Amino acid sequence: MKKFINSIESLLDESERGFASAHADIVRFNAEPRFMARTAPRAPGKVALISGGGSGHEPLHTGFVGLGMLDAACPGQVFTSPTPDQMLAAAQATETGGGVLFIVKNYAGDVMNFEIAAEMLECPHDTVLVHDDVSIPEHQGMGRRGVAGTTVVEKIVGAAAEAGMDLDGCKILGERVVRATASMGVALTSCTVPALGKPTFEIADNEMEMGVGIHGEKGRERMALAGATEIVEHLTQAIDGELKPAAGQPALLHVNGFGATPLMELYLVYHLAREFWGKRGVNVVRSLVGNFTTSLDMAGCSVTLTLLDEEMIRLWDAPVHTAALRWGC
Amino acid sequence: MKKFINSIESLLDESERGFASAHADIVRFNAEPRFMARTAPRAPGKVALISGGGSGHEPLHTGFVGLGMLDAACPGQVFTSPTPDQMLAAAQATETGGGVLFIVKNYAGDVMNFEIAAEMLECPHDTVLVHDDVSIPEHQGMGRRGVAGTTVVEKIVGAAAEAGMDLDGCKILGERVVRATASMGVALTSCTVPALGKPTFEIADNEMEMGVGIHGEKGRERMALAGATEIVEHLTQAIDGELKPAAGQPALLHVNGFGATPLMELYLVYHLAREFWGKRGVNVVRSLVGNFTTSLDMAGCSVTLTLLDEEMIRLWDAPVHTAALRWGC
Repeated sequence: MKKFINSIESLLDESERGFASAHADIVRFNAEPRFMARTAPRAPGKVALISGGGSGHEPLHTGFVGLGMLDAACPGQVFTSPTPDQMLAAAQATETGGGVLFIVKNYAGDVMNFEIAAEMLECPHDTVLVHDDVSIPEHQGMGRRGVAGTTVVEKIVGAAAEAGMDLDGCKILGERVVRATASMGVALTSCTVPALGKPTFEIADNEMEMGVGIHGEKGRERMALAGATEIVEHLTQAIDGELKPAAGQPALLHVNGFGATPLMELYLVYHLAREFWGKRGVNVVRSLVGNFTTSLDMAGCSVTLTLLDEEMIRLWDAPVHTAALRWGC
Repeated sequence: MKKFINSIESLLDESERGFASAHADIVRFNAEPRFMARTAPRAPGKVALISGGGSGHEPLHTGFVGLGMLDAACPGQVFTSPTPDQMLAAAQATETGGGVLFIVKNYAGDVMNFEIAAEMLECPHDTVLVHDDVSIPEHQGMGRRGVAGTTVVEKIVGAAAEAGMDLDGCKILGERVVRATASMGVALTSCTVPALGKPTFEIADNEMEMGVGIHGEKGRERMALAGATEIVEHLTQAIDGELKPAAGQPALLHVNGFGATPLMELYLVYHLAREFWGKRGVNVVRSLVGNFTTSLDMAGCSVTLTLLDEEMIRLWDAPVHTAALRWGC
């Protein structure tokens, strides 16, 4: 295992202290229990938006803490759910009378621990569950996983909360964005979890894992490596079949790298995905290309499409000041 | 070779078209000869800042085109210098009476081709040569390579040009930033150049390449893999010995990923580097952590320190609107 670490035990702490000192204008780090909270002042009564999940997906979620997006993020150990006490402490530290909205990716541990935290929380609260990974059937097992569409949900709901939308409104909006969003990913290599010290799965030089999850979970099928156009069509057709956008539909196209794939390739994937939807009359009016929901050092990427309405476009464009997304301020 | 590509021949074009359509509000792509130019209006007489180099280091340089930074960037083939006709066309397309400043990383091909372009250019012009890689002796062969410090030079000189500084002033400022900047990198894995189809160099699971260049060139020595603190001290001591910052010196600390190293590790490296200089009384007042000067899919990182004065801090903070750096607008 070739990584910049001193020890498995100190990895998260050293990394988070680095993050917090590099972005001291945006976040403050609470070490015990572990959460990252925004430093920007909050209007009294603003809904507190809190997310979290296993580490190893950075910049998600800590990189999205700040004005116009999350109030706090709770990082668990690598690929391990955070604990309810983290979520509870983050909620109590950031709630100012408007209640708390948890944004939770659909994984068993995350869902359970956010539920426990919610039960302990005495102020008004609600949850938006993100389940945008269309590689998995909708009603199988735990259902669909929450993947790169989470960034879009957190940005749009974050802008609404910042503008004063109440808890019910934020919850309804969040679920609307989730319904309008579909993602699918493909891995060319496995990631290596530090505590394990070896790749999560074996994959041959002429194979790819189509429909992979953001922890390297299997998706649809192990396939022979193909040219980029063919790979992208697997992703875009699955998404298109799910969302069934009408001609003229405005959309946000997000190409997300899993960590080890160069920007050059991500922009190439973006080009091909945009061509795919261009031929179908979908109007890509907003774009996001880069590493946002990563899987440590996995090579691969995902494509996410969100069908936009005017309110969602306005909220996407609203000012944001976080470590990973910043515009308008 | 596991990459998202259709063919070696179409790779750059497809990627650049994706980049240009994703960032159509910031850049326009000129396909023949190949350059990316900013769309933001330029004040008449503004110095035109032009950079370029081999592709494969994205977001450098195309991701730095836009208001407050570069007027145009000329991408060559992967790890291959752009040609003089690209630089000449980019200069002619962006010059508005204030002359042209080329910002050139110190590689033989880049230096030669920018010199040829400069000779053909009829308007006033000058060049800032970036040579911040302290892994190499200063007066050996071609001298020191230009690496991740280029981002700092392009940001600070870009802000000055935007504010109306003239050609001589920009040149003097750029050389001041170069003198105040030192970088060193370490590779844990090789990158794979698409046209070659296999790793540039072999490296064992228990080795690292200390002082590596951004194309995988050898640096100081092949060493046994070590803990992060030891690795970071190799980098920071070399930089510190070069710049010899006084106690209380304000500085910018830039930890740059080479492409395949997760953010979690980059922030850990940042934490350790900041501690190193903290103990020496250096005052890290600005930070940049992420993948900015990459080497395709190489795992590894570099550390850059720039000793700042008040003017440089003000110019670093000035508004910038590019694909890769954006703040204040």
